[in-house]
Amino acid sequence: MKVRVLVRLKPGIMDVQGAAVKRALAGLGFSEIAELRIGKVIDIELDEARSGEARTRVGEMCGQLLANPILEEYSMEIVTDLAPREVAG
Amino acid sequence: MKVRVLVRLKPGIMDVQGAAVKRALAGLGFSEIAELRIGKVIDIELDEARSGEARTRVGEMCGQLLANPILEEYSMEIVTDLAPREVAG
Repeated sequence: MKVRVLVRLKPGIMDVQGAAVKRALAGLGFSEIAELRIGKVIDIELDEARSGEARTRVGEMCGQLLANPILEEYSMEIVTDLAPREVAG
Repeated sequence: MKVRVLVRLKPGIMDVQGAAVKRALAGLGFSEIAELRIGKVIDIELDEARSGEARTRVGEMCGQLLANPILEEYSMEIVTDLAPREVAG
């Protein structure tokens, strides 16, 4: 079971990195950007075939480690089509 | 037009951060993780109503700034349902 977790700063929390990238892109001629925010994508492959169970477990991971509940919010998507990955070395 | 860009390390490139998080989660009792990789999600709101044009421009942004073509690969999704965001301050 593959789960994609998106961790983003909560709305209202200033995204310094996103603002810097938006400004840099404007400097490169991309002036049409109204807003740009940067977060994390965490691709998890679980030894768990039931999607409900996977969702519960990944929610626990987010609560305990993956997201900072003060600054961040998360969403998750069960995916079956993540690009195949291999670990080096 | 809202575009979601996912920037990930290429398969085969060692993901040190992902390996550390996987190990930390195993230490918390989440031993069912077969693999975990971490990348970036970049949510862009563009002043551009045509999705083809938006795709082209965001592809240029990725090539010039958002992704490191040596280490990273990117994919993009045109979305109409990003959670509403507001910028602080």
